[in-house]
Amino acid sequence: MSENIKFSSGLHVFGNTLDRFVGGGYKENRTLEQMFADAAKVKDLKGVELVANWHINESNIDEVKELSKKHDLAITMVVIDIFTQAKWSMGSFAAKDPAIRKQAIEDVKKYLDITAQLDCDLIDLWFAHDGFDYSFQADFIKAWQDIIDGIKECADYRTDMRLGIEYKIKEPRTHIHIGTIGKVLALLSKVAKDNVGIIIDVGHSLCAYENMAETIALCKLFDDKLFHLHLNDNYRAWDDDMLVGSVHLQEYLELLYWVKKVGYSGWYSLDIFPYREDGIKSADESIEWLKVMIKAIESVDDHEIEAVIKRGDGVEALGLMRKMLFK
Amino acid sequence: MSENIKFSSGLHVFGNTLDRFVGGGYKENRTLEQMFADAAKVKDLKGVELVANWHINESNIDEVKELSKKHDLAITMVVIDIFTQAKWSMGSFAAKDPAIRKQAIEDVKKYLDITAQLDCDLIDLWFAHDGFDYSFQADFIKAWQDIIDGIKECADYRTDMRLGIEYKIKEPRTHIHIGTIGKVLALLSKVAKDNVGIIIDVGHSLCAYENMAETIALCKLFDDKLFHLHLNDNYRAWDDDMLVGSVHLQEYLELLYWVKKVGYSGWYSLDIFPYREDGIKSADESIEWLKVMIKAIESVDDHEIEAVIKRGDGVEALGLMRKMLFK
Amino acid sequence: MSENIKFSSGLHVFGNTLDRFVGGGYKENRTLEQMFADAAKVKDLKGVELVANWHINESNIDEVKELSKKHDLAITMVVIDIFTQAKWSMGSFAAKDPAIRKQAIEDVKKYLDITAQLDCDLIDLWFAHDGFDYSFQADFIKAWQDIIDGIKECADYRTDMRLGIEYKIKEPRTHIHIGTIGKVLALLSKVAKDNVGIIIDVGHSLCAYENMAETIALCKLFDDKLFHLHLNDNYRAWDDDMLVGSVHLQEYLELLYWVKKVGYSGWYSLDIFPYREDGIKSADESIEWLKVMIKAIESVDDHEIEAVIKRGDGVEALGLMRKMLFK
Amino acid sequence: MSENIKFSSGLHVFGNTLDRFVGGGYKENRTLEQMFADAAKVKDLKGVELVANWHINESNIDEVKELSKKHDLAITMVVIDIFTQAKWSMGSFAAKDPAIRKQAIEDVKKYLDITAQLDCDLIDLWFAHDGFDYSFQADFIKAWQDIIDGIKECADYRTDMRLGIEYKIKEPRTHIHIGTIGKVLALLSKVAKDNVGIIIDVGHSLCAYENMAETIALCKLFDDKLFHLHLNDNYRAWDDDMLVGSVHLQEYLELLYWVKKVGYSGWYSLDIFPYREDGIKSADESIEWLKVMIKAIESVDDHEIEAVIKRGDGVEALGLMRKMLFK
Repeated sequence: MSENIKFSSGLHVFGNTLDRFVGGGYKENRTLEQMFADAAKVKDLKGVELVANWHINESNIDEVKELSKKHDLAITMVVIDIFTQAKWSMGSFAAKDPAIRKQAIEDVKKYLDITAQLDCDLIDLWFAHDGFDYSFQADFIKAWQDIIDGIKECADYRTDMRLGIEYKIKEPRTHIHIGTIGKVLALLSKVAKDNVGIIIDVGHSLCAYENMAETIALCKLFDDKLFHLHLNDNYRAWDDDMLVGSVHLQEYLELLYWVKKVGYSGWYSLDIFPYREDGIKSADESIEWLKVMIKAIESVDDHEIEAVIKRGDGVEALGLMRKMLFK
Repeated sequence: MSENIKFSSGLHVFGNTLDRFVGGGYKENRTLEQMFADAAKVKDLKGVELVANWHINESNIDEVKELSKKHDLAITMVVIDIFTQAKWSMGSFAAKDPAIRKQAIEDVKKYLDITAQLDCDLIDLWFAHDGFDYSFQADFIKAWQDIIDGIKECADYRTDMRLGIEYKIKEPRTHIHIGTIGKVLALLSKVAKDNVGIIIDVGHSLCAYENMAETIALCKLFDDKLFHLHLNDNYRAWDDDMLVGSVHLQEYLELLYWVKKVGYSGWYSLDIFPYREDGIKSADESIEWLKVMIKAIESVDDHEIEAVIKRGDGVEALGLMRKMLFK
Repeated sequence: MSENIKFSSGLHVFGNTLDRFVGGGYKENRTLEQMFADAAKVKDLKGVELVANWHINESNIDEVKELSKKHDLAITMVVIDIFTQAKWSMGSFAAKDPAIRKQAIEDVKKYLDITAQLDCDLIDLWFAHDGFDYSFQADFIKAWQDIIDGIKECADYRTDMRLGIEYKIKEPRTHIHIGTIGKVLALLSKVAKDNVGIIIDVGHSLCAYENMAETIALCKLFDDKLFHLHLNDNYRAWDDDMLVGSVHLQEYLELLYWVKKVGYSGWYSLDIFPYREDGIKSADESIEWLKVMIKAIESVDDHEIEAVIKRGDGVEALGLMRKMLFK
Repeated sequence: MSENIKFSSGLHVFGNTLDRFVGGGYKENRTLEQMFADAAKVKDLKGVELVANWHINESNIDEVKELSKKHDLAITMVVIDIFTQAKWSMGSFAAKDPAIRKQAIEDVKKYLDITAQLDCDLIDLWFAHDGFDYSFQADFIKAWQDIIDGIKECADYRTDMRLGIEYKIKEPRTHIHIGTIGKVLALLSKVAKDNVGIIIDVGHSLCAYENMAETIALCKLFDDKLFHLHLNDNYRAWDDDMLVGSVHLQEYLELLYWVKKVGYSGWYSLDIFPYREDGIKSADESIEWLKVMIKAIESVDDHEIEAVIKRGDGVEALGLMRKMLFK
């Protein structure tokens, strides 16, 4: 089974990195050409995700198509830009300013069309600034309703395209409305569109004190809505976007088992931020970890794993993981 | 408006307290009679919640009714015992053992009947042990489905009674399935019963890095499902069950504003654990804080508050709270 | 080297477990005899720790000595009881009540004598209740000074015995004064006694968002003060006292490497709380994990590990761990 | 007493703000002149802190002096730049590269001289990148020793100047060596220089699950080392650098009481990041909150406060705060 896994990566992995203290960046700025060329050097990488405005816009569609073709890298998803520019700082779909709300929805539609031109049927809606920082700053009911209505309108615009909602509990706002797996499931119960689903960023799941495997399972239980998978790791207090393999090995084994178990057939896509590390090596190492971890879970018969889960004894569960890892 | 608020308290506030280190308790064990007598001494307290097995069972219904009448304290809710005994340690509705699952559901039905005898139409279902601690220990999909099915069965048993679901992210398990406001909303979208709603314990909300006011607002947006309110405070890392007024004053102002704004007319019930403090004084002080906080938000005109929320400026929001508190 | 490791366990691992909800316990109460007999069944276990009052007191010294001899289990440490009884609820060395302070110090002296009779030279001082929950509740300077003075007095009482300070950031108080590795190092700089050192509970280190290996290294740098090691695991938000091997494999590898690197030659002692699990199996599984993890780090040459650390590249560090675990 | 309080602010409060997603900034870039002019508009502001490289360097010393004079704003501190440029990304005093270590120390010396020219005797050393992200990436003992040695060398270079150490537990690294109040106290016990002390950023204290007041008290107990105070607020999971008054009112009351109690006579300096808010208004509002909070604690007699602290009862402590705020 592990042979069939398709690995992807955010193109930003090969670009510059910055934060609020090092505004000039930890590395050099890179051209689109350079980033594609780097991605192509990563062993086993078959696709890249783009962030609108950072990597793709109305004027460079042909260049992107050429680079994609030249480097044999599929465009696996386009992340809509409702978060990289100052104009979105007070929100997009839930902005208080109706002109901003309108512009956000127009941009989504525009990029649905652009994405379709890239032989890709999936966009990512991450409502990064649609939240609040201070008490008495948000009208929660209106904000949620605006997000629900906006998603429905976009979903209806192109029923041939899939819209994935990516939740995150905090950053860049201290509180983001669509923040947890539960909230996104509740949201989708109101949206109720076939072409709207969920993008799980496992680091966002960790940050919300979720068990990543349960999160995947709930996507299955609630109408089989897992559209895409972002892989990285962190220390749970923040979205550190570290390399896969960094911190949570045991929980990652369970995650990967459940991803397989629910029948997910999409991309395994890296969303890491190698602030101080080489992008190519970071992607290579992350994929190596994914491969050895998948091999570890495949080294034990599924029936045996299911039997352990069925009995639910903690000591046995640990023994199972010890067997996976240490034979 | 503040005059109409009905204050309640868990009866356990007036009992002994213990934890894993001080198993014998921080105080003395108390009789039911003593706890009711103490509750009656709390100024403004009009009702008490009972925990099944701790305070109420098949054999002391008449005693409870008498004490309730004698001390003029309504029974505001009965918390079903699916968490105080060793038999529930591996779960109740989602226990792997079908006999335990069956017993849990039977107990709920039994206590629905008992509760009805107490002139009370509300029970609390808190799935404390229905979760997991270790990776590869839980079958998430089956567990959730079992919980959904169990709730439906119980809801159908007595449609004249209301069943409130209380979520909590951790403790006593490291992970509890029904853990966040989002998860309970998703759960209810599957349960879909008019007599099943939500009990918000604001400390559980804080523990899950929720904004308590947003949590209340979501209960409104998703079919007006706020059945009951548990009040306390904590430092967000754990369910410390501290007195109201301890830590989060600004967020509490916003919470109490939204509780009013959504038209909640139920009990304001204390769920505090005064491990080292006097129970009566703890309840009195908590209620005093509630009263001064409510007075503070009522000191500013609602239109002014709504205008601040509508503009959504953080500095203005802080200015509003400063006005509420410091005139 | 791994052959020389001496494994110990808290005797409580084989006793009943309880928490504030399941006051009667998740298991049955056990006699001292039963707990020793269980400990003896754990493969590779060579010693047990005792908690005063729970396991040892003035009247059962001979029984303990006999059981220790009969089961060939060394007494590796005695944890002083300044935390299991209601009288300590407002603190011990830093209690506001001078009579309680005096009694705490007298008890330490008494148990120093008792411990010496058990062929053991190490006690554990964990200031569990010496902290606070509410703002304006603590006189921090006086509390710290009282703790410093108390430790000095106890250290001088028996210079042939070693006193280990165990820190913890929270539980049972929301804030414990001696809460982090930094605070205990600062404390020891004032105490300045040769026979006073540090007991690292790695779960307490995780709870304080410490890197466990750095914590060990700091014990070395600050006068080589690592006296004893408590092993367990948790999800970082709380002292879950889970089995070794549960969550943090990568950080555990680094921890065990540094424990070896600093030349620690003491006990590797389990301090787990198997609430719902069999005690013997839990100890066995934890020791198995320790053994395979130690073997994993020993599978790579120390020079190679040191070279990776010296270069400090994150990707290389991950590659090293991948090599340790997956060959 | 409150009349004598001297308010200061980081000059960055009036500049642009950015983060990893909005690299171009939430606002416009501002000139030094503009930022000084804005600072001058803040009521009650008497001084500004500068960050080297962002605001001050060898070539603009005269301009800074002029602006300081023109706007009647004292230079209250210079934060050394060992964190804003890519060259520091793998550390400064504890960088693996000896050339970087040397350069960091040379820069500190250079800025000690520059700072002295600004009628200011205080610099801030924040070891932002001296930490690690991955296991097996850091040589903890060498890193700490390098930091200790570097501080000593810098302290000896200008004994007429004061060097304040600012700790922080995470960001921009997932782990920063000098991360908590305890660690900085331990560090200073090794540094042992009269002109080296501590800068408390209360938000960093909150992030490390410290009680801010205890942190201040420990600076007093350990050789009276509180050199400077950075004020802001956050939700404890991250250094949100929110306005004063945002979240933790009760703990802020205790903080401000202890700052007064330990006899601190330095600046009350704002270190906020108003990403989406107006800088001038943010500073004004923060100072207003400080003033009303100080007035609140001054509204109760110190003897009464001390009596409550001495008794240590939680309910009384809450009653005291209620009296401060709502009388």
